[in-house]
Amino acid sequence: MTIIIRGDIVFTPRPDRFTVLEDGCVAVGDDGRVTQVAGSPSDIRLRGTRASGDRIVPTDDAAPRSTVDSGEPEPRVIDRRGCLVIPSFVDLHVHAPQYPMAGVGLDEQLLRWLENTTFPVESHFADPQVAGTWYRRFLHRIWRVGTLRFSAFATLHEESTLMLMGLCQESGLRPVVGKVNMDRNAPEELLESTRDSLESTRRIIGKSRAATPDIGYVVTPRFVPSTTPELMEGLGEIVREFGLPVQSHLDENRSEVEWVRRLHPDVPTYAQVYDRFGLMPEGRTIMAHCIWMTQTERRLLRERGVWAAHCPQSNLNLASGLMPVRRDLDAGIKVCVASDVAAGHDPSMPRQIVSAIETSKAKTFETGHENDRPLALSEAFYMATKRPGEFFGAIGRGRVGTFEPGCDFDALVIREEDGNPLDLPPEGKLARFIYDGDDRDILERWIAGRTVPEPFA
Amino acid sequence: MTIIIRGDIVFTPRPDRFTVLEDGCVAVGDDGRVTQVAGSPSDIRLRGTRASGDRIVPTDDAAPRSTVDSGEPEPRVIDRRGCLVIPSFVDLHVHAPQYPMAGVGLDEQLLRWLENTTFPVESHFADPQVAGTWYRRFLHRIWRVGTLRFSAFATLHEESTLMLMGLCQESGLRPVVGKVNMDRNAPEELLESTRDSLESTRRIIGKSRAATPDIGYVVTPRFVPSTTPELMEGLGEIVREFGLPVQSHLDENRSEVEWVRRLHPDVPTYAQVYDRFGLMPEGRTIMAHCIWMTQTERRLLRERGVWAAHCPQSNLNLASGLMPVRRDLDAGIKVCVASDVAAGHDPSMPRQIVSAIETSKAKTFETGHENDRPLALSEAFYMATKRPGEFFGAIGRGRVGTFEPGCDFDALVIREEDGNPLDLPPEGKLARFIYDGDDRDILERWIAGRTVPEPFA
Repeated sequence: MTIIIRGDIVFTPRPDRFTVLEDGCVAVGDDGRVTQVAGSPSDIRLRGTRASGDRIVPTDDAAPRSTVDSGEPEPRVIDRRGCLVIPSFVDLHVHAPQYPMAGVGLDEQLLRWLENTTFPVESHFADPQVAGTWYRRFLHRIWRVGTLRFSAFATLHEESTLMLMGLCQESGLRPVVGKVNMDRNAPEELLESTRDSLESTRRIIGKSRAATPDIGYVVTPRFVPSTTPELMEGLGEIVREFGLPVQSHLDENRSEVEWVRRLHPDVPTYAQVYDRFGLMPEGRTIMAHCIWMTQTERRLLRERGVWAAHCPQSNLNLASGLMPVRRDLDAGIKVCVASDVAAGHDPSMPRQIVSAIETSKAKTFETGHENDRPLALSEAFYMATKRPGEFFGAIGRGRVGTFEPGCDFDALVIREEDGNPLDLPPEGKLARFIYDGDDRDILERWIAGRTVPEPFA
Repeated sequence: MTIIIRGDIVFTPRPDRFTVLEDGCVAVGDDGRVTQVAGSPSDIRLRGTRASGDRIVPTDDAAPRSTVDSGEPEPRVIDRRGCLVIPSFVDLHVHAPQYPMAGVGLDEQLLRWLENTTFPVESHFADPQVAGTWYRRFLHRIWRVGTLRFSAFATLHEESTLMLMGLCQESGLRPVVGKVNMDRNAPEELLESTRDSLESTRRIIGKSRAATPDIGYVVTPRFVPSTTPELMEGLGEIVREFGLPVQSHLDENRSEVEWVRRLHPDVPTYAQVYDRFGLMPEGRTIMAHCIWMTQTERRLLRERGVWAAHCPQSNLNLASGLMPVRRDLDAGIKVCVASDVAAGHDPSMPRQIVSAIETSKAKTFETGHENDRPLALSEAFYMATKRPGEFFGAIGRGRVGTFEPGCDFDALVIREEDGNPLDLPPEGKLARFIYDGDDRDILERWIAGRTVPEPFA
């Protein structure tokens, strides 16, 4: 049976403007996919009915009924008038075990912050008790803020990675997750042998397919400095063998880029190191940061169809630099906005959208408004919904992030403020939510046509 | 009777580090002022007792009693162990009537944003119904986020400005408020004659002294472009006559600075225009933004002891520029962090503290880390507590923002997170709150030794 969600519908089929249906409708089929978006319930066509006689007339309480007997059951109208209905957020770069350290140690830059704060936290995830407590808190928070799909780094620990995947399955959220691989340049308690790393990865892939079918696996070398060529080679084989996606870090910090250069003097650029080892599979790779890319790397990312996860809050916190987002977009790179929790301290994608806009404005102070036109709100929203949502479509887990027909209905229902003197249109109300709302304004969360109840409350 | 608040005490007598008393105490006298800060209740000296016999021994339930009969009543211990006790926040630049537009129209820069969003909103405050609703919402929000003292712009409307002052008095919050003065370069519905502007200002000063004794008046020319020389002249007289403080805007946007130059070709700099008209009274002036100051202006602000209200979120939102905070601090200017709601979209001072740190890092991308060393967390916290709190001391309304003896006990009690694997010290817990906490973590708000209940809920 079709359901029809009625409210103020706002989404971004394209980045340059919002598509708005004030008191509009989204129709969703049995399979949880959007079938149609329309101005009113009466404009929704029922499957299998005649084109001329398939209108639905809403009754006073907004429950529509067919005017002809088409043999179809009547659709159920979910009346959310006075609310915004928007695509839920998609975050393609987040470190689940770093959630307990959000805000800590940010007077330092990347490499010292990894050593002094990140590695000590992640080593605690060897303990299943810590992992259980904090992965539950993380998932509860990410549900609260309306990020219903994401791509997460776990730690290198097999048991706690499987636990995270199990908790994701239990929560109803639909992320991809990867065990971190690292066999060099980390403290002893966070190192594994190349062989252990590869075997453990294969075990997790095997076990999780059966145990957590709704949670995808994503191959996750931490970054070039912490993975030997042998490990990258082996991971490249796993990627090919299972057709899996890859996530990692690229060109975040200038000292890091220099380090990679020293580690791989025979490879011209950082990105080409991943590519050489088969870790940039076409149309299913996420690379975080991408601040210091060369033109060669830009070309490579475009050719491979890589999602470049722009993490503006993280980049400021660790003083990594300002990604030249406008130039990367103009170069045809699939830039999306991501949180990078916990170098980004706030899991809320609205806060990351704002940070992306703000840093794009800061970029113009260096280079001029004409060269690096700042992101408009609709663009940054697109980069946190439809653009990263395509990743899930590409790996066969449902295209999300927009209400175009065929997409999974992943959505948030958001309370609208009353009595604003500006009498704002829906996109203005959305701007108010993005800039100054919070999780208390989100009334419902939908994944693939079903509401997701609060997990681990 | 003295009260003793016991918990994890954190504050910043100086900017370069936190003063931390883990399970410490603040003693507060009858007059609401801090008398002493100590490591435990037993270290608190009671007034009038002998130096050698004035220890208090805490009992098991932490209620101390005197070991000698000193004739003093026993102090009441407020047990807030497991909580942070910090100075409440002070925001020296906020536009109360702009609260309903937070997040709206931010794809534009200052002068167009004023025209298209700000002036339309402010003109609605001619209506007491709108003013009543939205000033209540504003005060409720500002209470929630723990900003207990602030300096607010109202609109030019006399009735609604008096209403705002009345609501402030009723709320228990202790701000200063000013009616905006503007007699040129604004839409017709937001213009007043020079004479009306001055007479209305005098009436508000007179009425509010009797009706709202706890709320100060601050003379508030909007900015040079919207005030004629005659109006500035008249406001300067009011400042001298009543010994009042002044707040305005300075050097926010390059087009604005150029405009001021054209309006006052005989005055070398923007700041000197205010000074020429007596609108920079020594030790009681707030100037917001101060991004594009010349060396002459820096010297003048230092000489006049002006509080420069740095509004980092606003400056990014309106693409105004990055204030060279480190250089201004090194030049001896009293820089504080402020929200500038609603060009800054978030009334929460913790968010503004983070934004100040982030933009100070962005500044290093232009000029290098050595020249513009970013703000440390303790510095930015100082700039949102002790530094702006001195303003209230300077105008005779109680020094706040720190727990040094003689200061009004203005404080927040903040829930501490349990079970963090990093086993953080109090300043680490404070960092977690500043970066990733919200109003739900604030359990109590204190002004001058008394808790302030939720207003207008």
